[in-house]
Formats: sequence, structure tokens, C-alpha cells
Amino acid sequence: MERNSNQPLYLRIAERMEAMIDAGSLRAGDRIPSIRHSSVQHQVSIPTVMQAYSVLESRRLIEARPKSGFYVRPRLSKTLRQPVASKRKPSVASLAAFASVLSVIQDVNDPSLVPLGAAVPGDELLPMKKLGQLTSALIRKTKGICLRYDPVPGCLLMRKELSKRSLDWGCGFDAGDFVITLGASEALHLALLAVTRPGDTVLVESPTYYGTLNLLAQLKLKVIAVPASSGDGLDMNAVKEALNTHTVAAMLVIPNFSNPIGSLMPLANRRELLELAEKHGIPIIEDDIYGDLPHEGPRPHCLKSLDQEGRVILCGSFSKTLAPGFRVGYIVAGKFQQRVMELKNAFNLGGPPLPGLTIAEFLRTGGYERHLRRLCHTYRHQVCKMRETVAEAFPEGTKLSNPSGGFVLWLELPRSTDVLAVFREARATGISFAPGPLFSPNGSFKNCMRLSCGSPWTPRIESALGSLAGIVRTLQSTQLT
Amino acid sequence: MERNSNQPLYLRIAERMEAMIDAGSLRAGDRIPSIRHSSVQHQVSIPTVMQAYSVLESRRLIEARPKSGFYVRPRLSKTLRQPVASKRKPSVASLAAFASVLSVIQDVNDPSLVPLGAAVPGDELLPMKKLGQLTSALIRKTKGICLRYDPVPGCLLMRKELSKRSLDWGCGFDAGDFVITLGASEALHLALLAVTRPGDTVLVESPTYYGTLNLLAQLKLKVIAVPASSGDGLDMNAVKEALNTHTVAAMLVIPNFSNPIGSLMPLANRRELLELAEKHGIPIIEDDIYGDLPHEGPRPHCLKSLDQEGRVILCGSFSKTLAPGFRVGYIVAGKFQQRVMELKNAFNLGGPPLPGLTIAEFLRTGGYERHLRRLCHTYRHQVCKMRETVAEAFPEGTKLSNPSGGFVLWLELPRSTDVLAVFREARATGISFAPGPLFSPNGSFKNCMRLSCGSPWTPRIESALGSLAGIVRTLQSTQLT
Repeated sequence: MERNSNQPLYLRIAERMEAMIDAGSLRAGDRIPSIRHSSVQHQVSIPTVMQAYSVLESRRLIEARPKSGFYVRPRLSKTLRQPVASKRKPSVASLAAFASVLSVIQDVNDPSLVPLGAAVPGDELLPMKKLGQLTSALIRKTKGICLRYDPVPGCLLMRKELSKRSLDWGCGFDAGDFVITLGASEALHLALLAVTRPGDTVLVESPTYYGTLNLLAQLKLKVIAVPASSGDGLDMNAVKEALNTHTVAAMLVIPNFSNPIGSLMPLANRRELLELAEKHGIPIIEDDIYGDLPHEGPRPHCLKSLDQEGRVILCGSFSKTLAPGFRVGYIVAGKFQQRVMELKNAFNLGGPPLPGLTIAEFLRTGGYERHLRRLCHTYRHQVCKMRETVAEAFPEGTKLSNPSGGFVLWLELPRSTDVLAVFREARATGISFAPGPLFSPNGSFKNCMRLSCGSPWTPRIESALGSLAGIVRTLQSTQLT
Repeated sequence: MERNSNQPLYLRIAERMEAMIDAGSLRAGDRIPSIRHSSVQHQVSIPTVMQAYSVLESRRLIEARPKSGFYVRPRLSKTLRQPVASKRKPSVASLAAFASVLSVIQDVNDPSLVPLGAAVPGDELLPMKKLGQLTSALIRKTKGICLRYDPVPGCLLMRKELSKRSLDWGCGFDAGDFVITLGASEALHLALLAVTRPGDTVLVESPTYYGTLNLLAQLKLKVIAVPASSGDGLDMNAVKEALNTHTVAAMLVIPNFSNPIGSLMPLANRRELLELAEKHGIPIIEDDIYGDLPHEGPRPHCLKSLDQEGRVILCGSFSKTLAPGFRVGYIVAGKFQQRVMELKNAFNLGGPPLPGLTIAEFLRTGGYERHLRRLCHTYRHQVCKMRETVAEAFPEGTKLSNPSGGFVLWLELPRSTDVLAVFREARATGISFAPGPLFSPNGSFKNCMRLSCGSPWTPRIESALGSLAGIVRTLQSTQLT
């Protein structure tokens, strides 16, 4: 290390590293050398390196991760803005047109394609071995229990563990408040059936998860899709106006790390939403499936935690955190619980007990907290990597969400982009993503796409993103000529 | 053995044993001494015993069971007639009243009571160890698969095994014809949604499974319950008339060992039912959940095997044969398959893959046939024992079904009996059964009950039956005074 500058040594080290980050030699999510390693590398003392890293931390360029070291923080590329909520006034849509776009879901989920489509965790991120061991041990230990019907409300041990966890959600539910469901999907299905009738209108975020739109379509519900931004989520003025001008039977929202836009609804907006629900006498269905996945800090509370009246029906699952294939979800339905239980009992007599018991045991023995810490860091890292790469590769004018949790990104491509054409082309190249129109009841978001960052960051994924950007550029230039 | 009679030796042995059977020293389902053992016991040659047993067989008093020996055949007590179909003309019912009786289901399923209520196999009858081993092996071997979503139509290996088995049903389905469901319950749910709308009328057997009535009620369907007898099932004239006088959207039937009356629909009636369905242009939903459980002879074919037009939707599961708690069922929906898949996908994105894989492996490695043979014998034995005991203990005038498969019995008590009063009293004594009104949309069968013979025959169950008969007698005499 040169020692001929007037700057203190630690500052020179810090600035050299900042230059490397600016130049892209060190990129968001990269691990930087350990303190000990840097000390050797720069031939300076350990306290000097610590001072240098402290500067970088205070400049929000790097961050410490417990037991793992220092990493380059994600930084928005200057060229990428976030998508904003549409200003268009929402109207009631029938979802009849939605069926036509639904056929692409199969491609979104096709496992032979590069997995930027379905919002599923990569196998590598799941505690496969531990869950396998627990399953084997439980089926031996519990004998008959796993073979028997597990009547609604389902697995008591699971409900007890959920009761404990609900403190982290800002709630203090009893085991008796829960009904175990087949993933959050079944929870949403039961919630909607409990509070609506065919022909009713449900208020949702726009864009929102296509599975929800599909469910609404199958239940012959109509929808009013209220614009939401990737920052704060729902445009509250638009919600207010929609409720004043339309008869809405229920609102279905994703306050924590919304799919696909990744928004985190501010507390004030949550309070306002509840007040509006109260004023209009309507229930709120809260999809909290990403709530356990903040990129940093504590888990955000549920909207349900503010609910004094049993007006909010909370739905969640372990499909994004532990094992989609276990199909273990839950619903806290408040005053609709009896109805929800009747419906579930009539529809399938309850689910298989083994997956619930296994996850309960995982939660009980403390593996979940440790697993979640690692998982949230990993998702964050993967989201950072994907953002950086999109920022570099995609055309000027692309907007990109900046989620603080979950693992999906929402891209708004230049207005002229036909994303369904991009989708077909990408599919042919072996790449899958979720095209924007899937997230709209009436084919909006024609120039948008959702990218899943659920899989480990690999050269294959990096190169697929490059190809995707190439396809976008090519189709754009074709259109321009 | 005395040798001073004029009768041939073998005949004297046969008649002595017949006398023992008549006197009740040997009872239906009892194993009689082996040929070798009898030969020693009676001091006669083995061929003589064989001749004697052959006489008893031809008189239908005993029967050989493969690899197990000779057993006393079930014989109807002379005093017990079978219930016959009601002559009352069926009308359309709304099921609104059904909800009131539904609350007793919890007691029917209460595991702390003597289990004559829920139609579930006793743990002891299920291949617990083998299923446990397969589960453990699969979760190790298949790695990620068990953690991943298993998209509709579900587990291909399971569907391949079902395809093979369908030959025994008189069908030759492809793996592609099946959708894996959460038990037969979900299959029935999807089937009904695919072919009806709220307010439609569905034709069912009377009495029929309360779970079906509950499902119809939750789907806001109406029902026309057509009388069925414990012999041939549906009264075909009544079906004809019902279809001529009412608009029926679908028929839901249990041709093989109907629950609760145990009827096996004759071939001619099946043909007629299909012709009627064709004439009126309506689908048939076939619940075949007991089809694998004949008491002797080959498995009866499915009604679906006669279906040339994709009009029959077949629903089944392994809940009565392998593991209720695995929740593995299936549906063959013919021309409604696409719709069924759309619905299932919207409702829960598919079930957990592990239970289906486990059962597929059990079927593939040949354990199922052997298990079924044993299980059918056991169910038959338990049904025989229960019939004999009911015949002895219950009041004069009790009628009793005589099923040739499955494991439930239907009792018609003397007309004055208030079975819900019996139910309350029995519950207080720690005994559960399913009261008749559960099997009717409008509270009929007030003097009927269903007894489950799913649990191994034990002194506890025998004594519970005695108590039950006592309660019936006491309540009758109270009413008479």
C-alpha cells in the first residue's frame, strides 16, 4: 500500500474499494475480503481495515452479515427508476378475458426452462435433508397418526407452533384461531368462498398474483384492480374512490412484499385501509405468503395485527420458505372461521397430517429461525444480482422494482415492448419468465414482466438474463424499423 | 368317533359340525379346525375329513379361504330381514335442514368413543410399517421432488399405477386420463363443480353418504334422493320417474358397495342408468371408493366401464384400503377433465407429491394385491361378526343389510325408535355410530343407523353392541309406557 497520500490510511483503503464498487469490479451481493485477508493484502493493521470497512458501511456501500462477513450492498443503477402506479381509473372487470392468457402458466412453470418464471424457491435453498429426516422419524414415531384422517381444523401441533410464531406477526393467536390448509392457495379459496358469492366484485392490487386472478375467475367473481406501486403498494386515493363508486364484497391484498411488485405497505396506509373496510363494512383477505422474507430487519407485522374486529382473514404458508411440495398453509379467519371449517370439511375432510407434523417439528426444534436468516440473505443476494444484471443489460428506459423482501422483481420495459412476443421468443430459447398480462384481469402490463429470483445465482441464469435483454432489444428494433 | 351309525362317516362328521354352527358354538367368520387337525380329533382319515368339509361347503355353511383354511360362512339370522327401498315418491329437497343434523358428525368421528361411527379402517388393518418404510426411502431417494410443487394432474407414477389397475375395473385408462386428488372427497367436489351450477338438482341414492350431502349443501345444490335397497341399490323405476318429472343436472351414485346400504348395483340396472343418463343428456358421477373391497370373488367393475360417451366421472381413493391420512384419491373425468384440472389448479395448485409417490410404490412393488386379499377377508369377518351380534342382541323387527363388500352395515330399527335419542344416549355411554337422518337430505331414516365394521372385532366392540341394543330396547319400552 502506498503511504504517500495526505489522507488517513483507512480512508484511502475505503476509497479504493468504493472505486472498485463504482467500476463494477465488486458488485452488489459480492462478498468482500475478510478483515484479516484485507489486512494482509493491504499490509495494514486489522484496526485500520476495520476503520475502512466502517466508513464503507456508513456510506451504505457494504454491510456486515452475521457469521458471514461483509458484502457489497445493492445499489440502484442510476439509469433504473422504479415502476409507478398507473393513474388510470380502475373499473370492474369480469375476468372472462383472463382465461386466454392463462395458458402460458404451463410455460411459466416448465422445469426444463431457465427458472425465471414461477416464484418458487430453488431446491438448494430448502432444508431438504432435515425435512427428510424429520419425516422419516415422525412416520416411525407417530405410527397410526400419519395414516389417519386429520379432521379440520387440522394438526394441533402445527397450530400450536403457528400460535407461537404469530407473536412475530404482531398478533397473539391461539392454536384454536388457525385452520391448516393446503398451502396459501386453499386458504385464499376458502376465504373468498366464505365472504363472497358468484358475481361479487373483489378489490385487488394491480398488478397482482395471477393465481389469485385465476381463483377469482374460477369462482365467477369480478374484480376491480386498483393501481399499486412497487414502493408503497396500493394507491390509497384510488382505493377510496373505488370503494365509493363500486359495490365491493371484499379486498384481497398482499401488504408484505407483494407479488409481483414487491411493495411493503406503510403503516399509515394499512390503518387507512382498515378504516375504509370498516366504513364500507367489508372484509379484507390478507395474503401474507412472503411476510417471513424481509431482506433485512425484523419481519414486518401483518395487517391482521391492526384488526380489532375480526374483519381481516389472514392467509399464509410455508411454500416460499420450507417446502412448496408439503402444501402446508394456514388461515386465521376470525368471525368467518366456522364457515371456513365447514367448507374445508365438505371439500376434502382435511389434509394429510404428515407434512404439517414435519413442519411443526421443524419449527419446534428451532431450525426454522436459523434457516430463515440464511434464506433471507440468499434471496436478497439473488435479488441484488438480478437487479444489477438487469440494470446493465436491459434497454434504456426499463424500470425495475426494488423490493425489501421476497424474491420477485417487476420490470416495466419501454412502452413499445410486446412482452408476449418476448415471452414466446424466450421460451423457444429455453428461458421462462412471467409476462405482465398474467397479472392483470384485462391484459394490461403488456410491456411488463416478473422475474423470479428464487434460484441460486449461476452463470446459466446470468447468461439467460443477457439473452432475455437481447430478445427485448431485438424485438424493439424490429418494431422501430 | 362312534362308528355305529348307518350314515357314512364323512356325513356324520359334517352333520355334527352343522349342529355346532346351528347352535352357535361355531359362528360366522370363525375358523374351523384344519383338515389335519380334524382328522386327529375325529380319528378318521384325511380324505374322510375332506369329504365332510366338501359337504359343508356345498351346503354353503363353510368356505375355504386361500392359504388360510376353512371358515364358517356368514348366515342371515332367520329373524333379520333386509331393509327395503321406501315406496315414497322422491321430491327435490334444498338441504337447508341438513345443516342441523350435521353437528353430530363430530361425535361420529370422536376417536375417544367405541368406533362404530366413522367408516374408517382400524389402524391395525393398514400396512403401516411398509408405508412408513416406503415414505422414508422415497424422501431420501427422490430428493427435491417431495419438496416441489406437483402440478395438476399430479404424480405421474401414481397415474401409471392407476392405469394398470384400471383393467381390474373393466376399464383401460391411460395415465393421462387421471387427475390425482385429495381423497375421493376432493374428486367429488371437482366433479360436482364441473357439471353443476348452484341451484341445480342432483339425483342421489337414499340413503346416501352424509359427506356427499354435506358437499351438495355447501355447493348450494338441491337434491332428489331416490330410494335404494340394500340388495340392488337404486329403485330404477323411481329413477326413471324422477328424471321424467324433474330437471336433474347430474346423478351421483355408488354402484359398488354403496355407503351406507352396501348394495351392489346389478349389471342390467347399470345399463339402464346409463341409457337414462344418455336419454336425458346428463352426466353421472360414480363414487367407487369401496370398489376394491368385495367380500369374495373378483372386484366388481365400475359403472364407468360401460360408458361409451365420457358421460361418467369416476371418483375413487385409497382411504378405505391403505391410508385415509395420505389423502390420495383420483378422478377420471372424461370430457370434463380440462375443467376439473383448471379448478384444482386454481383451488390448491395440486397436492403434496410424497403420499402419492408412496402409494404408487406400494402398488408397483405388488404389496397391494396381497394386502387387499387379507383386508377383504378381515372386513368380511368383521361384518359377519357384527351381523351375528346385531341379530342376537337387537329387538325383534330390526332389519339389517347384508353387504357383499365394504365394511358398513345399515340397520332399520323398529319404526317407533328415535335413533337420535339412541345416539345421544350411546354417546354418553362412550359409543359412537352414524344415525340415519345423517343419510337423508330432510331428516328421514329416523329409526335407522349405520354401523361401521372398520375396526377389528374385539370384546370391547361386542360389548358396545350389546349396550347399544340395550339402549334401543330401553328407549322403546319407555316410549311404549
